[in-house]
Amino acid sequence: MNLNKTENTLPITDRTKIKRIPKRGQYEREVVHQILDEALICHVGFVVDNQPFVIPTAYGRVADNLYIHGSPASRMLRSLSNGIEVCVTVTLLDGLVLARSAFHHSMNYRSVVIFGVAQVVEEAGEKLEALRAFTEHVVKGRWSEVRPPSHQELQGTLVLSLPLNEASAKVRTGPPSDDEADYSLPVWAGVLPLQLSTLSPIADSRLLSEITVPEYVQKYTRVHQE
Amino acid sequence: MNLNKTENTLPITDRTKIKRIPKRGQYEREVVHQILDEALICHVGFVVDNQPFVIPTAYGRVADNLYIHGSPASRMLRSLSNGIEVCVTVTLLDGLVLARSAFHHSMNYRSVVIFGVAQVVEEAGEKLEALRAFTEHVVKGRWSEVRPPSHQELQGTLVLSLPLNEASAKVRTGPPSDDEADYSLPVWAGVLPLQLSTLSPIADSRLLSEITVPEYVQKYTRVHQE
Repeated sequence: MNLNKTENTLPITDRTKIKRIPKRGQYEREVVHQILDEALICHVGFVVDNQPFVIPTAYGRVADNLYIHGSPASRMLRSLSNGIEVCVTVTLLDGLVLARSAFHHSMNYRSVVIFGVAQVVEEAGEKLEALRAFTEHVVKGRWSEVRPPSHQELQGTLVLSLPLNEASAKVRTGPPSDDEADYSLPVWAGVLPLQLSTLSPIADSRLLSEITVPEYVQKYTRVHQE
Repeated sequence: MNLNKTENTLPITDRTKIKRIPKRGQYEREVVHQILDEALICHVGFVVDNQPFVIPTAYGRVADNLYIHGSPASRMLRSLSNGIEVCVTVTLLDGLVLARSAFHHSMNYRSVVIFGVAQVVEEAGEKLEALRAFTEHVVKGRWSEVRPPSHQELQGTLVLSLPLNEASAKVRTGPPSDDEADYSLPVWAGVLPLQLSTLSPIADSRLLSEITVPEYVQKYTRVHQE
């Protein structure tokens, strides 16, 4: 009996099963969580009158819940509040895969697709915890330094939670895969790795003069985060 | 009479009108094209049985058409081939906006949302041109060096075009916008700029020994592309 294995792996449903190139599919919760924790934005897909909308937005994760938030005036949040089906996709681009033929060019990536129905977070404690996760997801160490949300700001923020029950990851890594005959072609082939990097921080023009750039900004990176 | 102005601006429809924070909305074709040309992947949203799907994929642009492609076995491509409504979203993340309050944290970004119905590209000339644009979009200068698609590869690739007739961009730039009372808080505030950068290229293990890394790989950047 291996309960751990079962709990650590997401159930494969018709919606989450990776059908195209199934070997790229991954269903371990840890893989899904790592991708969600490294990426900064998700793309939220929803349907209004049979019309699909795909909207980029930031998010946070607490355990097996993904949180998004915003103004109650947002069409996306209002629509999702009605309990409709949502598809949230997160993609990290890791490299360009340059093959010897145009046909076999590809990209290395890690993506997560989540299906489900989002719920409005009403309870004040969970709402604050979601907002904390949201800020900490973007910049770890930030929450304890900034002014926390006021009562009015909390009231004016709509927070939605989406359970990470029906999700899967898709991952491509490694070199190009060329047709055997093409390996003799005099063409450079390989991978050009990509990563999101930072430039020098730009201090706000009204920054108090004694304030220095915090270490969590100076050493900011999305890679190898725990 | 200013025909140019009209032609250079996309019509604002109910679907493309930026309703949340309308000052961030931009409808100039040039702005939309620049964002599409700089980004590498899009997120394609479509509906099957009232269920939204959001799938990341690469793309190319030729004039006022966006092209995506893949295997005819792909659910996404098969679904879109049926002439259903699609929403394609492209997002560039430009920076983290760190305000003095948690509430006013934000991100600088440039995004494009395109609505429409995709069409299968049947004509061989347009299909090849789309695949050229696709490769050149990812790595400019690559197409002329690699083995072009064979007849069989062309036959086995489904190419779809989506007209850029109903699209808009949304752009946030600049510093945080804090509540007046918060400017006196002893908290660092400003922007941490982000950009997609490259690491050293990884040559394929079967690369012929005399082949050096091409300049378009060595000097690769997505920024300031023409």
